[in-house]
Amino acid sequence: MLDNMKYPRGRLLMGPGPSGVHPRVLEALSSPMVGHLDPQFLALMDNIQEMLRRLFRTENRLTVAVSGTGSSGMESAFVNVVEPGDEVLVCVNGVFGNRMSDIVERIGGVLRRIDRPWGEVFDPAEIEEALARHPDVKVVAIVHAETSTGALQPLEEIGDLCRKNGRLFLVDCVTSLGGERVEVDAWNIDMAYSGTQKCLSCPPGLAPVTFSERAMEKLKARKSKVVSWYLDLSMIEKYWTEGERAYHHTAPISMNYALHEALCLVHEEGREVRWERHRRNSAVLVAGLEALGFRLFAQEGHRLPMLNAVWIPEGVDDAKFRKAFLDEYDIEIGGGLGEVAGRIWRIGLMGETSSRENIMTFLGALETLLERDGHAGSVGAGLDAAARAAD
Amino acid sequence: MLDNMKYPRGRLLMGPGPSGVHPRVLEALSSPMVGHLDPQFLALMDNIQEMLRRLFRTENRLTVAVSGTGSSGMESAFVNVVEPGDEVLVCVNGVFGNRMSDIVERIGGVLRRIDRPWGEVFDPAEIEEALARHPDVKVVAIVHAETSTGALQPLEEIGDLCRKNGRLFLVDCVTSLGGERVEVDAWNIDMAYSGTQKCLSCPPGLAPVTFSERAMEKLKARKSKVVSWYLDLSMIEKYWTEGERAYHHTAPISMNYALHEALCLVHEEGREVRWERHRRNSAVLVAGLEALGFRLFAQEGHRLPMLNAVWIPEGVDDAKFRKAFLDEYDIEIGGGLGEVAGRIWRIGLMGETSSRENIMTFLGALETLLERDGHAGSVGAGLDAAARAAD
Repeated sequence: MLDNMKYPRGRLLMGPGPSGVHPRVLEALSSPMVGHLDPQFLALMDNIQEMLRRLFRTENRLTVAVSGTGSSGMESAFVNVVEPGDEVLVCVNGVFGNRMSDIVERIGGVLRRIDRPWGEVFDPAEIEEALARHPDVKVVAIVHAETSTGALQPLEEIGDLCRKNGRLFLVDCVTSLGGERVEVDAWNIDMAYSGTQKCLSCPPGLAPVTFSERAMEKLKARKSKVVSWYLDLSMIEKYWTEGERAYHHTAPISMNYALHEALCLVHEEGREVRWERHRRNSAVLVAGLEALGFRLFAQEGHRLPMLNAVWIPEGVDDAKFRKAFLDEYDIEIGGGLGEVAGRIWRIGLMGETSSRENIMTFLGALETLLERDGHAGSVGAGLDAAARAAD
Repeated sequence: MLDNMKYPRGRLLMGPGPSGVHPRVLEALSSPMVGHLDPQFLALMDNIQEMLRRLFRTENRLTVAVSGTGSSGMESAFVNVVEPGDEVLVCVNGVFGNRMSDIVERIGGVLRRIDRPWGEVFDPAEIEEALARHPDVKVVAIVHAETSTGALQPLEEIGDLCRKNGRLFLVDCVTSLGGERVEVDAWNIDMAYSGTQKCLSCPPGLAPVTFSERAMEKLKARKSKVVSWYLDLSMIEKYWTEGERAYHHTAPISMNYALHEALCLVHEEGREVRWERHRRNSAVLVAGLEALGFRLFAQEGHRLPMLNAVWIPEGVDDAKFRKAFLDEYDIEIGGGLGEVAGRIWRIGLMGETSSRENIMTFLGALETLLERDGHAGSVGAGLDAAARAAD
């Protein structure tokens, strides 16, 4: 049984990630192995940094791919700048804000936390107020695209506020990068991180991160060593820097090939064109879903185009439907996490997955499953509305 | 320049890792993407666990692939069991013992350190003595195969000693696993970790780890949370456990495909056969090197078969030779690290790389480069001795 297992057949990946991967990325992934100090690989690392800077919209020198998944990017953003005793304001409106809070406490930071109901976003005034209450806060942390709720957090005013008050601004861009506008420099973001398996449409395994000079100063002025050796960016930086290339750990070579190719695809399409594609396709999907009686979960006006969260209608069994999607149609959609487990679906249109064809495939399957489950009048209704929205 | 870069052409990887990768592993790597909770992927995870247990020679339930490179495996081994204030005895005879010491101090452990000259191994009596001096030591940490020196540390007696005295025994198997005997259960090892890019001949990016029940008890009895959220095995365990499958982070799907296939290849060949292949090929290489006047670096009787460290002879320029190997022959060999930088070469015969053909290719290139550099009489001498040793 051990040695003759087949590798998975593909799925239409319409969950919260991983998303569909372009054949060019899979091909790059299987390129021949070289060493982590091979000049061929170092040249590729330079290209990755340059393409990441263009995508994060930043001049930050420290812009690299951390050798772990998006969550390791989150941990690296906190662990490098937060010293024991440092106050951190975390804005929580979903799973990933909770995860940030957990990390802050684990590394000995003093957690100052504000909450919004899941699915809603924060108003800059709330953050201003919290900072007035906690004048010693050094870092303000927030999630740009809350993958657990489908809410898109505006960042520009909060970034201005942080810069004006001398706080570092830390942003989770795991789900937004490559699918929505991210402006690290213009929005005064000091630490940002992402993952490869969302709108970059690369397999999971790397975390693009970028640190401003202000963040680097905080890192270099630390009194204590970074608690994580593996994620210590003062050492990782030396490996990624032209000329230095000091060995830290063996980089995941193949995954960096894949990220390189995924970034080439992003820039060939063009950032703005790609964001617009995500927005247009989301509108088409939402039109179809609403025609079938679904209501959106996240706050109006602040909904993610790449991850569409909807309430599961009365009488629809979450587990049964998701299993039918997977087993009968090879379609993966996401269930709810935490307090909305069993109550929402998260339908992803990330990167390669965001196409008109995939939306129609999904809506057709959904209509059939609803009709079979006794929701008469479903067949055709979603597809028609989507087709009209697409015109 | 960004979009038209070619991916690297392959090299003959005879350094300290990554090693050569079998085409079947590269093919598995580029299999279609699925979700991290897809039943197809969960079945594959079960297979990986089972094959890792067979290779680590353990019944340990917690035997998983951590989502980072070998160094993340090292960090996970310490960070889960060492609480602030816990005393840890680290045995240092190379770079990786130093790295262990650094990690212990970062996470607030109390470092008790003993040193041997680089290239030598520890005698159990030294550890017994150190434990008598430091009766509160909770963890004894040592490197099985020191990648920076080429020394192979015997473990059995030290393991007995630790078990008898109630200390946890932590072992770095990054370079040994898959190329030399590792007996986690029989040698009373409580925490062991490895990397994928050495004798498993898989791309770098995952760290196989295994924890004994005693280690798990220490983890579960902690008073403080594990300082690293990303590497907290009490949560990672829930994702890898059949039935639970609680989401922690998105696993690096493609890398797990590759590890799965690499482990299939290991078990198809057979552990013992594979260890013997590594030993025989090392003897052939060493015969050739000695005939060319090279002296081995590591202590006699305790040399690694998969990583052969030699003194660079008088009059041979380290950087010039390694550059010529790479540029003219597409062969990568390893230089020295730390205190032996510029003074030794580390010639790897790991996993797929360990073959008669590769040895002869390397020796032929070495002879030519030596002759050209004025070391008359080199041509043929190494190859002849190697051929005789191979008979």
